[in-house]
Amino acid sequence: DDGLLETLAGKGVIDADEYQQLKAQQARQERTAATFSADKGLMLATGDGTYTLQFGVFQQIDFAAFDADGSDLSDGTLLRRSRLALGGKLGDDWQYRFQYEFAKASAAITDAYVTYSGFKPFSVTIGQAKLPFSMESLSSAAGTTFIERGLPAYVVSPILRAPGVQLARAGRRWSLAASATGEPLGDSASGDEGWGLAARATFAPYVAGHRVVHLGLGVNWRKPTQDNSGTTPSTSAVAFTARPESNQAPNFLNSGSLLDTTSYRLSDAEFATAFGAASLQGEYMWIDVQRDNGRDDLAFKTWYAQLAYTLTGETRTYNVAKGVFDGIKPAHPLGTDGWGAFEAAARLSRLDLDDGSVSSGNEHDMTLGLSWYLTPYLRVNANYVKVLKLDGGPYDGQKPSIYEMRVQLSF
Amino acid sequence: DDGLLETLAGKGVIDADEYQQLKAQQARQERTAATFSADKGLMLATGDGTYTLQFGVFQQIDFAAFDADGSDLSDGTLLRRSRLALGGKLGDDWQYRFQYEFAKASAAITDAYVTYSGFKPFSVTIGQAKLPFSMESLSSAAGTTFIERGLPAYVVSPILRAPGVQLARAGRRWSLAASATGEPLGDSASGDEGWGLAARATFAPYVAGHRVVHLGLGVNWRKPTQDNSGTTPSTSAVAFTARPESNQAPNFLNSGSLLDTTSYRLSDAEFATAFGAASLQGEYMWIDVQRDNGRDDLAFKTWYAQLAYTLTGETRTYNVAKGVFDGIKPAHPLGTDGWGAFEAAARLSRLDLDDGSVSSGNEHDMTLGLSWYLTPYLRVNANYVKVLKLDGGPYDGQKPSIYEMRVQLSF
Amino acid sequence: DDGLLETLAGKGVIDADEYQQLKAQQARQERTAATFSADKGLMLATGDGTYTLQFGVFQQIDFAAFDADGSDLSDGTLLRRSRLALGGKLGDDWQYRFQYEFAKASAAITDAYVTYSGFKPFSVTIGQAKLPFSMESLSSAAGTTFIERGLPAYVVSPILRAPGVQLARAGRRWSLAASATGEPLGDSASGDEGWGLAARATFAPYVAGHRVVHLGLGVNWRKPTQDNSGTTPSTSAVAFTARPESNQAPNFLNSGSLLDTTSYRLSDAEFATAFGAASLQGEYMWIDVQRDNGRDDLAFKTWYAQLAYTLTGETRTYNVAKGVFDGIKPAHPLGTDGWGAFEAAARLSRLDLDDGSVSSGNEHDMTLGLSWYLTPYLRVNANYVKVLKLDGGPYDGQKPSIYEMRVQLSF
Repeated sequence: DDGLLETLAGKGVIDADEYQQLKAQQARQERTAATFSADKGLMLATGDGTYTLQFGVFQQIDFAAFDADGSDLSDGTLLRRSRLALGGKLGDDWQYRFQYEFAKASAAITDAYVTYSGFKPFSVTIGQAKLPFSMESLSSAAGTTFIERGLPAYVVSPILRAPGVQLARAGRRWSLAASATGEPLGDSASGDEGWGLAARATFAPYVAGHRVVHLGLGVNWRKPTQDNSGTTPSTSAVAFTARPESNQAPNFLNSGSLLDTTSYRLSDAEFATAFGAASLQGEYMWIDVQRDNGRDDLAFKTWYAQLAYTLTGETRTYNVAKGVFDGIKPAHPLGTDGWGAFEAAARLSRLDLDDGSVSSGNEHDMTLGLSWYLTPYLRVNANYVKVLKLDGGPYDGQKPSIYEMRVQLSF
Repeated sequence: DDGLLETLAGKGVIDADEYQQLKAQQARQERTAATFSADKGLMLATGDGTYTLQFGVFQQIDFAAFDADGSDLSDGTLLRRSRLALGGKLGDDWQYRFQYEFAKASAAITDAYVTYSGFKPFSVTIGQAKLPFSMESLSSAAGTTFIERGLPAYVVSPILRAPGVQLARAGRRWSLAASATGEPLGDSASGDEGWGLAARATFAPYVAGHRVVHLGLGVNWRKPTQDNSGTTPSTSAVAFTARPESNQAPNFLNSGSLLDTTSYRLSDAEFATAFGAASLQGEYMWIDVQRDNGRDDLAFKTWYAQLAYTLTGETRTYNVAKGVFDGIKPAHPLGTDGWGAFEAAARLSRLDLDDGSVSSGNEHDMTLGLSWYLTPYLRVNANYVKVLKLDGGPYDGQKPSIYEMRVQLSF
Repeated sequence: DDGLLETLAGKGVIDADEYQQLKAQQARQERTAATFSADKGLMLATGDGTYTLQFGVFQQIDFAAFDADGSDLSDGTLLRRSRLALGGKLGDDWQYRFQYEFAKASAAITDAYVTYSGFKPFSVTIGQAKLPFSMESLSSAAGTTFIERGLPAYVVSPILRAPGVQLARAGRRWSLAASATGEPLGDSASGDEGWGLAARATFAPYVAGHRVVHLGLGVNWRKPTQDNSGTTPSTSAVAFTARPESNQAPNFLNSGSLLDTTSYRLSDAEFATAFGAASLQGEYMWIDVQRDNGRDDLAFKTWYAQLAYTLTGETRTYNVAKGVFDGIKPAHPLGTDGWGAFEAAARLSRLDLDDGSVSSGNEHDMTLGLSWYLTPYLRVNANYVKVLKLDGGPYDGQKPSIYEMRVQLSF
């Protein structure tokens, strides 16, 4: 498209010298002129796009009511997540992102990293980012189908993010990522700090339009923070806990500190597929704990499988480079030309923490969910969680029902 | 106003086709071009004004010195409020606002809401916002006449904001608002969470230029968080406390936890008027507490009345839609063409927490204030609080004097 | 440079009236048009530059490993600093800056001030800012040569910033600053709050191109928060502690609370010089403590001297108005046309806390450092600290080695 200067020069209103000079002036002005758009969060950019600053806001207010046989759990509201983020580009090959969580009594950093994409075809991330492990855990918490992720996510979440180095590479149908990390920032356990290695490979054998089939494998090996006092039993430990897919409920399952742990490994197999408005997603995870000082090694298992259908026809977009689905964007938002998008979903999940000398119980949950995406920024969820089976722990044998609602704003 | 393209087209320098094409190009550029202005805080907007992002900063540093008979209160400085906020528009009918308070040891969210104004004539607010109750409590803390609000505000402030739903509507001379809310975000009392209903109506029988008469009525009914342990006395309780209009002083009045409270109600009558540089404002509030397990119901009273005069002639702007005064803006700021604005003010206030079986004392205060509004963003206050009467509690019979100063930056 | 309107008017394509009108229109548009640049952090400005908003991000993730005879210190990572800042101009003579630190369990404000430069030649700062004392402490933590400042900085850092008033003035070769302040915001010691006076003068006898000689003198007198309980010994106290130039190590020296302190004074002499890529910097500090209730007065000493050389030739820029060096900016950043800048450095430092009745020990450290400035925003450091001598305290007689690394992003 010709601009005004081109048009005037073409007509001879301004001559070639004047054109050059005015064009250069225009380019200088455009470089410092800011652009501000709402396409990718609220993003500020220099005119040439070299430097950008995205403002991220992520807020979730929940309400939950409980119906448990023989126990009176506390109904009420919860500020589940309350995050602010800054991110963007610092020159062409440098990306950065810093996100803070203010929902808890002490503010905490979540994302804190810089990514360099100048060593092509690899990208190198330094700082605290999500470990490359588990499709559902890597999906943005703003875009997950249900109010809370399924039971396997509780095993991943204590070290969802950690500081270190991550290498990633992706093709048109696959992605690979590997990381070496310490303990999460803010962790204050005493002893020599724990560390770990994680890797994930994804492959999409079929990608066409609104249809995709996804396969993934991941492994997450960690050595917990090591007791360096020399006494026995060592306090080197890992603990697995799980709430019943409501963050307002207590931990229904809790292994307590598994002392004398030298290392543990999570292994994960992922399958997902989307056909238009329908999608299916599941993961199966193996947990292996190595212990010394005469304690037995342990093996636990956990999985979930979920089905979702967008009643208004929107599809879950597949992000090949990250091997995850992005969330639903309503085609006809409330306030413009419609009522937003509606989605129905169902999930089964299970976590079994019984093995050898450890009987921490096992749980089997069903969740039904309905989501209303009012605008690209605002979402309301209603979930019903039914504990189908619960063995062990203080709620042994009970089958609580949980009614949850969430209002979420995110950009 | 004709622009360059219109001028060139009118002269035939460019033809109609070229004009259309260049005009469309210009419109595209303007849509993504950012505007940044200081008129309403520091506000960034897309060229078409559909999306905006306001950066709010609100900082107060106080100094107080005490002169109490027989008690040595601690003189010194205090970071009273230290808040950052993001707010703005996400499309034409959607407003949002998130504000965080960093003055306390644990960061806390204050405002956290989205307002939809597409269901005209109503606006619907979802999230945590101020309850529609009490003119002085609804006025921005950046614009209140004195360093601290009067004694009735201490009764309102424990649940100044809470998460829920609010409906509002306003006419040219009136406003109506009602809300249903839970307990404030971050509250961690155990038991089934408390909730409440609040409503407020305001009417301005006279509004003309710099003159206004304001009347208001409000009610705020709440059920505190309910003890669900089944034991007696129940810990379901409300407590009323009040500092002597200095946040660096201890609570001179303190009811302690009024156990076995099933519900309580605040009722408020407001009167205010502004005539040019002079203004008068007052509220009278009734506090009624319902209790069970054989405890007596309680009724307390509190009120304030205040007078302000802007020595430099500026007027308090009345915001009809919200039924509150906005703060003073200096006509001649320091650094441009003057020394800013000066305001003198006086206030009487009273809180009586004696009734039936409860003798928590009563207090009567006088406050004199002088404010210097250096610029629209910067304000310095000096207040003198004299406790005229204080019965009950650890300072029973004393009449402390308090000397307070504040430096405030807000935008 | 002529713009398009000037060119068209010069050619008679538009007439004088049209020119005036279009020019005025252009000026109006430019005033609200935002500019966004990365030259001085990420800065947003109104078109006329009257109002600006800088977004500051300052993040440091550290790793340290310890090698101590007979003690097992905990190796690991640390979020050392995690700060967000907003600053800029609110009209021509008003600057503001607010910075928050999120690296600790409770978020805290660091900078919180407004500076007015309308009373020329003085600038007046109100709020919490760094006290005018000690070159190394006044240098931005993002630009210091080593991972941690030398031992004298641990004496300054408990009251690095405090709320109050500061006056400053500078010439072409000198600077003067003085402040009166209370205790740092967030401090919650009981009793009448402490306060202090500080002043610093700097002089650069030689400044030419990349060469500078700097001299400085400072004094920092403080009265600690006063016990007003009337009991003996009074809890009015000061304490001096020092880590061995690693924030992940414990305090190797610790005086504990020096009770009955009425006041203390730090006095500082500074010398620094830069010749091209080489620079030398040192400070000598005297600590004098006045005590009553029969306790002896105390006098301690501390100093550091450091040498730095930029292998890639960049020079430390000298900021005359503040009397400090700004950090290194790489001439050829990674991602554009090079590998960034490299700097090697060495430091000796000493702190002696033995005097009179107090034997808190003394320490002598050597530090070797290598810095890689990848881009103007990103820096990686490696430091080796060797404790040459350590008398007193729990590590008495040991000579630990500390291996430190840091990744830093700041803008």
